[in-house]
Amino acid sequence: METHSQQQVRVLCSRVPEHAGHPVTVSGWVRSIRHLGRLAFVQVRDRSGVVQCVLEGELAAALPNPESVVTVTGTASLSPKAPGGVEIHARELRCISAAAPLPFEINKETIAARLDTVLDHRVIALRHPRLHATFRIQSALAGAFREGLRRREFTQIFTPKIVASGTEGGSNLFPVDYFGRQAYLAQSPQFYKQMMVGAGYERVFEIAPVYRAEEHNTSRHLNEYVSLDVEMSFIRSEEELMDLEQELLGSMLEKVAAECESELALLGVDLALPSDIPRIPIAEAQRILERTYGKTSPKGDLDPEGERLLCQHVAEKGKPSFVFVTRYPRDIRPMYAKPAPEDSALTASFDLLCNGLEITTGGQRIHDYDELVASIRGRGMNPDHFTGYLDVFRYGMPPHGGFAIGLERLTSRLLGQSNVREASAFPRDRMRLTP
Amino acid sequence: METHSQQQVRVLCSRVPEHAGHPVTVSGWVRSIRHLGRLAFVQVRDRSGVVQCVLEGELAAALPNPESVVTVTGTASLSPKAPGGVEIHARELRCISAAAPLPFEINKETIAARLDTVLDHRVIALRHPRLHATFRIQSALAGAFREGLRRREFTQIFTPKIVASGTEGGSNLFPVDYFGRQAYLAQSPQFYKQMMVGAGYERVFEIAPVYRAEEHNTSRHLNEYVSLDVEMSFIRSEEELMDLEQELLGSMLEKVAAECESELALLGVDLALPSDIPRIPIAEAQRILERTYGKTSPKGDLDPEGERLLCQHVAEKGKPSFVFVTRYPRDIRPMYAKPAPEDSALTASFDLLCNGLEITTGGQRIHDYDELVASIRGRGMNPDHFTGYLDVFRYGMPPHGGFAIGLERLTSRLLGQSNVREASAFPRDRMRLTP
Repeated sequence: METHSQQQVRVLCSRVPEHAGHPVTVSGWVRSIRHLGRLAFVQVRDRSGVVQCVLEGELAAALPNPESVVTVTGTASLSPKAPGGVEIHARELRCISAAAPLPFEINKETIAARLDTVLDHRVIALRHPRLHATFRIQSALAGAFREGLRRREFTQIFTPKIVASGTEGGSNLFPVDYFGRQAYLAQSPQFYKQMMVGAGYERVFEIAPVYRAEEHNTSRHLNEYVSLDVEMSFIRSEEELMDLEQELLGSMLEKVAAECESELALLGVDLALPSDIPRIPIAEAQRILERTYGKTSPKGDLDPEGERLLCQHVAEKGKPSFVFVTRYPRDIRPMYAKPAPEDSALTASFDLLCNGLEITTGGQRIHDYDELVASIRGRGMNPDHFTGYLDVFRYGMPPHGGFAIGLERLTSRLLGQSNVREASAFPRDRMRLTP
Repeated sequence: METHSQQQVRVLCSRVPEHAGHPVTVSGWVRSIRHLGRLAFVQVRDRSGVVQCVLEGELAAALPNPESVVTVTGTASLSPKAPGGVEIHARELRCISAAAPLPFEINKETIAARLDTVLDHRVIALRHPRLHATFRIQSALAGAFREGLRRREFTQIFTPKIVASGTEGGSNLFPVDYFGRQAYLAQSPQFYKQMMVGAGYERVFEIAPVYRAEEHNTSRHLNEYVSLDVEMSFIRSEEELMDLEQELLGSMLEKVAAECESELALLGVDLALPSDIPRIPIAEAQRILERTYGKTSPKGDLDPEGERLLCQHVAEKGKPSFVFVTRYPRDIRPMYAKPAPEDSALTASFDLLCNGLEITTGGQRIHDYDELVASIRGRGMNPDHFTGYLDVFRYGMPPHGGFAIGLERLTSRLLGQSNVREASAFPRDRMRLTP
């Protein structure tokens, strides 16, 4: 219980039934107003839910617009016909902040506006229960990620996003003017998480924004997104990383299912994870696509259509589909990717696809200094440009690897959204810098 | 227990005593090597601690440099004289990654190098137990912040760091080239956290980097740091925010004290919080400084010396000193600061000082649209430059406020470090962009 500006004790809407027969005060947004003769039924929404208030006579006459912020005081009484089985017979409605007419209605089943309009008026749109639910779920996902890793003795790290150079040779970087020097926004904390492993933390994770200056303007891309990064040392192979991600995602979905029961019910989403996500080498995945769908793929990779079809292939009816794709060729993976033990043209790496879209890239890394220098040279890059990173490999570096999950992609795939922008509170894309 | 590359089960150093009398395998970094006749005593360090290994004869002859990564297999046996009361009689030592000679020694009480050298070789330096402890504690602080707020029904939010304009009129911003358009790095999530409050989440927090292009090159400033941001609606006054921060810090310090017992013991730090942090209006604080120390202050504010002296004034012997300073004048606070009810030249705002340094700025915000527009105009700024932000105030905005804690400042103040850079894994300052 909280107190509001008139010193009455504020009761959350969802707790009003516990006060039946007693005076209560609720504060929140006017969800809807319905007049019936001398009566007005005003639904008030707060962070916990909605409660119906019944106003009579003069009180019902001059009501503020929907979405105004109000404080209503009255008597709670059980009413089987009211939503939630309770209503407040109001003796006072005080308008705290009057709302102007809305750009679109948000008390209907869905918002009748294009995604661009929804994003232009993001704050209003996020009051719609379905859109609202997305970011409650996202918050729970991030929390469950952290908890799952803390239980496994991982340390949370915070690494800089302003960097002197890129991790992969300089493309797709946003330039920053750093006191007159050229700097960039980090595409990933890749180097830093490896460095923190080498600093003796062994197991680290980071939850932070990353930046990709990709010109793509698709339903799958954001130019700024939240990366859930993991790095772990003393591994034998990338299989341990996939084991970890399988277990971690399992515990995350379980926790979110418990924490966000009503949000998931509202969206009609079942957060089940297969108990054993299949692991398919890319070459085999390409053969499956060719054989099953007559679909050809780019060399050593899948295109978006291929990702979609492969998920379709492994899907169990009505459940989210997950599949690890492994053994990508070296020439499409970064210089730090460890070659596969049985074939040095392939890597000990993987992607995780979820409901038709890549949500994770991971793999074992090269931990030997000479091998890493040779790999950098093999890409036509200059090891001198990677001094700070390479240094750690000269002073004792254990075998290690990791992965990164795109938080918005994970959220949108789990919730069945067609555009990743729906899972970003304030998305940044090729055209959009506001709000 | 984990497995390592030879399929033997890896035992963490701290767990070796449990295996006394049995074969064990440990993996980690060579902390130190000491020869005694035909014997060599090799201390191995991993994320859990240190264990001593005894090598004989040929095994003792050709040992890798300190800080090399090794795997040692042998028999664990209790040995009252060994550190931790146990040692491993090795039958094999395998070098996984040989270390070059170190730039400075890290197995002494302290590192005998200047801070700049330490930061240049950050990964090596972080293996020193005292420096290592800092970021274990920082991880625990961030986790405890999150848990304390989740318990109070706050939602974690993720808001963009690439923004079209600054929150306070355009100074101290790092420019970003955003696909040929001028954009900036966010100085704070201020507008976005208010917007998420207005989107109906009511209580939100964010843990994310912020950017200040300040030319200062002092022991107190970082140009990129992690901001622990909180925003809460339906408050009566900023007193509730100080109540929240008092309780939150209390639960954070308690949690960290439990989670990082050995790290805090190593650093000799006691994380006690006063049960009631004093709240002193700035005018009164200035009078105290003048009266007690003959110290004059800049108009309506404290300088670094004043912050230090005020903390000294409220300090209890041997404990961290905290003090809220309140009622700052309007002209030194941002345009969104709510005027104090009794005097509109003052604000319902506060800073929190910890051990001589400001670690938090907070306050109640203006929630009335017209009042906010007038306040923006009063600063000589154009409301049209704040459209996306102002929009939310037109559609129902509850009374609200919040605060932000600088994670590195909090960490360094609690640990008694003299330079905030010590509490940033990879600090960014006026001169430093690497590693």
